Amino acid sequence: MSRPEKPKQLLSLTGTETMLQLTARRTAGERFAAPIVVANAFHADLVEEQLLEVAASAQALVLEPSGRNTAPAIALAALAAGGGSDPLLVMPSDHVIVDVDAFHAAIAAALPMVQDGWLVTFGIAPDSPETGYGWIKVGEPIAAGVHRVEKFVEKPPRDKAEAMLAAGDHAWNGGIFLFRADMYLGALSVFAPEMLVATQKAMDLATRDGLRIFPDAEAFAASPSDSIDYAVMEKAPRVAVVPVAMGWSDVGSWDALHALSDPDAGGNVVRGDVVAIDASNCLVQCEPGLRVALVGVSDLIIVASGKDVLVLPRGRSQDVKKLIEAMKE
Amino acid sequence: MSRPEKPKQLLSLTGTETMLQLTARRTAGERFAAPIVVANAFHADLVEEQLLEVAASAQALVLEPSGRNTAPAIALAALAAGGGSDPLLVMPSDHVIVDVDAFHAAIAAALPMVQDGWLVTFGIAPDSPETGYGWIKVGEPIAAGVHRVEKFVEKPPRDKAEAMLAAGDHAWNGGIFLFRADMYLGALSVFAPEMLVATQKAMDLATRDGLRIFPDAEAFAASPSDSIDYAVMEKAPRVAVVPVAMGWSDVGSWDALHALSDPDAGGNVVRGDVVAIDASNCLVQCEPGLRVALVGVSDLIIVASGKDVLVLPRGRSQDVKKLIEAMKE
Repeated sequence: MSRPEKPKQLLSLTGTETMLQLTARRTAGERFAAPIVVANAFHADLVEEQLLEVAASAQALVLEPSGRNTAPAIALAALAAGGGSDPLLVMPSDHVIVDVDAFHAAIAAALPMVQDGWLVTFGIAPDSPETGYGWIKVGEPIAAGVHRVEKFVEKPPRDKAEAMLAAGDHAWNGGIFLFRADMYLGALSVFAPEMLVATQKAMDLATRDGLRIFPDAEAFAASPSDSIDYAVMEKAPRVAVVPVAMGWSDVGSWDALHALSDPDAGGNVVRGDVVAIDASNCLVQCEPGLRVALVGVSDLIIVASGKDVLVLPRGRSQDVKKLIEAMKE
Repeated sequence: MSRPEKPKQLLSLTGTETMLQLTARRTAGERFAAPIVVANAFHADLVEEQLLEVAASAQALVLEPSGRNTAPAIALAALAAGGGSDPLLVMPSDHVIVDVDAFHAAIAAALPMVQDGWLVTFGIAPDSPETGYGWIKVGEPIAAGVHRVEKFVEKPPRDKAEAMLAAGDHAWNGGIFLFRADMYLGALSVFAPEMLVATQKAMDLATRDGLRIFPDAEAFAASPSDSIDYAVMEKAPRVAVVPVAMGWSDVGSWDALHALSDPDAGGNVVRGDVVAIDASNCLVQCEPGLRVALVGVSDLIIVASGKDVLVLPRGRSQDVKKLIEAMKE
């Protein structure tokens, strides 16, 4: 269902609202300023439309002329925010957080250290030996609920992931960050100066149209392409983690979506026009205009979208990548 | 896939040609006259089109104004044939016969008795205790390969079907018949006189348009509605059966279609735009314009047609009826 023209964050996967809309709702209210949204220029209309539907107008919509990974994208946001000392909460818009109160409490816990100039990441309590995530070794406490990051461990092999899970002193790096805009830009000037120069120039030469900001394409293209983890977090000296159990998921697979959904009495999670008889523990995702009928099956994932139908057993959803490759061939 | 506007006989299920086209091919050549086709008036254009594609022009296309079951439909054909002494081979157009030579040999075996006025049915060698078919107890031989019908057994209960299968002296009634047109009409005059009167009147008042014959609707509606089995075959005294093993199937379920198809090395039978990885013993039927992708599944039946997707395990295809009922609700 996730395609270049409509990626995961613009889809309704967990309910009637899209993941972008749910992300916007997560920081609605007086405690938060209106969001600065960084997006692919191609998705500008859809992003504005979806935000409008949940009455979450952005203060700025920064439209990347090309993708340079997360570190430059966040630099654009920090610059769009004015680069001052206000804390900047960085959230991917394709994550699910079930317990928003826990998330807000974690933000509150982090804020004093953020004011003191720390770069904070949120550590997700792990429940499986995931090899696709970055892990964080949680170090000594430095404030209530806040710990020094002892070490980042990028996408570990299975045995190492199992050991970290068993040890109990590691967390997943959830990709959600909190820091002052000026501290982030300052860290860039130390650890990735070319990135700072390129993104500043791109913003200086940006054109604007209402809320929309179009960074200069040539200047932005000159920025190194790197993740915030590699470019900044793993290098900066004052990096903290706030461990939090908040029902987080990056919905990285159909299995993940099944795991975070409320099943019916038969263990099925169905969305759309679905008729199921004697079916159990299935995930059925059916787009409007299509209809799925099943009888006598269990533990299947079935997705009907556009002209495509996907069928696989639960537990195999990482193999969707193989299918995509086979289809390209 | 089978719907009132396009029933099974007009679909391509076993290959690129429709079941009607395959049926027409089965009696092409010098031994057979051009077919008389009896069809629902609603399907006239599709029937003509499909026959034209296999260069099998009908000698007549009799278009029923309403459905009155098989006995009156066959009476229309016998009357359209002129009611003479020529043998009339009656074939449903939604059956598969893999071994056409065996079928032709069975016809040849039957012909002498047919000339003598016998009504002949073909007895399918049973390979399972089917409760949905009519069965025939095969009696004493009356000519080479031809036996008297000792008894018809309509849709038996399971235990009776198992006993008949074990006894080895029963055959399925395949619904394919061979008799002289005059003998059939004569049998009607004895056992179903109102049917003969009604169908004769319907044909006398019929309108014609090229090959198309439109029996009078009012006259035809006055005919009793009955199957050839009940109305004639179970009552007539001189009824014979030619047992034949010819790879017959009425393709009455998706399981039946899987059973009569040649699977690939993985045991899969796939038709249409299908990408399968690590899948085994599946039947996937995908209409043009749709695409099905599977990974890691086995023994599933998956059908994608129009806006509908059907998923069920092999062996459960009789339960499709339950789905249709649930959908109607």
